[in-house]
Amino acid sequence: MEKRVVGVDVGGTNIVCGLVDSLTGKAEAILKCATEREGGSAHVLGRIEGAIRELLEKHRLEMKDIQAVGLGVPGIIDPERGVVILASNLKWEQVPVAEVLGSRLGVPVTVDNDVRMYTYGEATAGAGAPYDYVLGLTIGTGMAAAFVNHKKLYYGHRNQAGEIGHIVMEGIPYSCGCGLTGCLETVVSATGIVRIAEELISQGVPSRLQPGSFQSKDVSAAYDEGDEAAVLTFRKVGGCLAKGLASVVPALAPEAVIIGGGGALAGERLFQPLREQLQGILHPMYLDHLYILPAMHNEDAGVIGSAMYAASKYA
Amino acid sequence: MEKRVVGVDVGGTNIVCGLVDSLTGKAEAILKCATEREGGSAHVLGRIEGAIRELLEKHRLEMKDIQAVGLGVPGIIDPERGVVILASNLKWEQVPVAEVLGSRLGVPVTVDNDVRMYTYGEATAGAGAPYDYVLGLTIGTGMAAAFVNHKKLYYGHRNQAGEIGHIVMEGIPYSCGCGLTGCLETVVSATGIVRIAEELISQGVPSRLQPGSFQSKDVSAAYDEGDEAAVLTFRKVGGCLAKGLASVVPALAPEAVIIGGGGALAGERLFQPLREQLQGILHPMYLDHLYILPAMHNEDAGVIGSAMYAASKYA
Repeated sequence: MEKRVVGVDVGGTNIVCGLVDSLTGKAEAILKCATEREGGSAHVLGRIEGAIRELLEKHRLEMKDIQAVGLGVPGIIDPERGVVILASNLKWEQVPVAEVLGSRLGVPVTVDNDVRMYTYGEATAGAGAPYDYVLGLTIGTGMAAAFVNHKKLYYGHRNQAGEIGHIVMEGIPYSCGCGLTGCLETVVSATGIVRIAEELISQGVPSRLQPGSFQSKDVSAAYDEGDEAAVLTFRKVGGCLAKGLASVVPALAPEAVIIGGGGALAGERLFQPLREQLQGILHPMYLDHLYILPAMHNEDAGVIGSAMYAASKYA
Repeated sequence: MEKRVVGVDVGGTNIVCGLVDSLTGKAEAILKCATEREGGSAHVLGRIEGAIRELLEKHRLEMKDIQAVGLGVPGIIDPERGVVILASNLKWEQVPVAEVLGSRLGVPVTVDNDVRMYTYGEATAGAGAPYDYVLGLTIGTGMAAAFVNHKKLYYGHRNQAGEIGHIVMEGIPYSCGCGLTGCLETVVSATGIVRIAEELISQGVPSRLQPGSFQSKDVSAAYDEGDEAAVLTFRKVGGCLAKGLASVVPALAPEAVIIGGGGALAGERLFQPLREQLQGILHPMYLDHLYILPAMHNEDAGVIGSAMYAASKYA
């Protein structure tokens, strides 16, 4: 009888769970439901349990067919104890997720930060699989990173490694939700793309975009039509990302940088100015041996990563 | 019968070797001789062998009392094969150090980069010993770093991790020997301290220092007498180091930054403006939990680290 793992990506809006083959890292089935975060952590944990049971039922599986369940949660997590210390977006504090879900489901449960799980998925079963040193970057509402070294996640002191969205850059004047001013994520994020486009338009750069009414994907669409503000926006955002990477790469020496998240759907519109502007600020000893790649499973990488991580602990 | 390890720090000017107790990490004896690098790698390897034999003889030890010999060499090293790929300062290329010395001495020999060895020494038997995540920084002619995670060295792709002296910083106009412009080490180094002081003096800042005739230690001495250019120099150098650390710390999340090398002898003259200028550019989640400390064995850390590293492989 086959054994599988379940991965769960717990977002502020949706819970996405999937059945993953731990050998191939392929997601065999995906089920999505609303998080209903306003119901509180107990309610959301109930919904996660329900979603997992529904997923198994649909595929005529029982809990005993599952090796483990892995969760990715946006926030500060203690993966050793399986506790969500703080997930601001969900308004969770000190929630012992692994213990509660583990005893209800009767299988081992892991929980870790969502960006780490996304990166782990890409590093083990995605675009980063061929590489030993993988820096995963998510460009969404904010920006964060995680690092996988020979298929092992790197955590850092107090599990705080990877917050490169909060590197303060000279020349960025925007104040950040974290309390600092000039954080990389105030520019390099879906929010930042909109911010920069709006600023350029307010400065008189011609554009078909109407300030106050567009999202980052609209900037991509405008770019494709040659919109001047949109082109300049990706040049600016790509340049800031280049400066951020150029300050991190010499320390870590990754072999691959895998970029995912909603903001990364811009793809080459962002990657091309990024690569161009890395020239001259990142030494060829790094640049010539660095793969900068889009995520392979941008949508499902969190589910796959959470599942693969659980498998690495319990399979 | 006791067993000991020998550590050797191979510099451009001197070879320093020492007998180290692998349990305590204490250097029991140190012997120094000229490198005579102009004699070529075979000559220098002969001198290293001679120095080790002399050291043992002096302490009435035989080669069989030694568990292993570890070398630290400035350059690009392949520690797995024990080969110095390129040591520009020594003019060595593809020198199979571990094999040559190992067969001559009849004990296992390791060879690795000198900054990694210094950091390993501080992380295992120096100022970084109490911490799990140690970033070691050497401020000498240039500037480099290495990273020890739970007493294990981190290498990165192609063993290239740690070259943070070549992070390009906005606002630094100087061209670097590496080919880039604006590298951190053009300011944060013994050379950089002199460069900044000379520039300030040429701009009319009052100073007792005479451009063209002073070294970084003279800037320290002038600082102690309240010399205006010297005070501003350490403020500027400390500020650049702060920016460099602020861009590396969120990625790595070290618990301790251990600063050594000749330029670090400036001590609090440099550390105080560094700590001050980290405020506001490094989030308190990192800053409040980060120890910034001078190296404990600034002179011998390379010897101790090389020895401890050899012990970790062969003891």
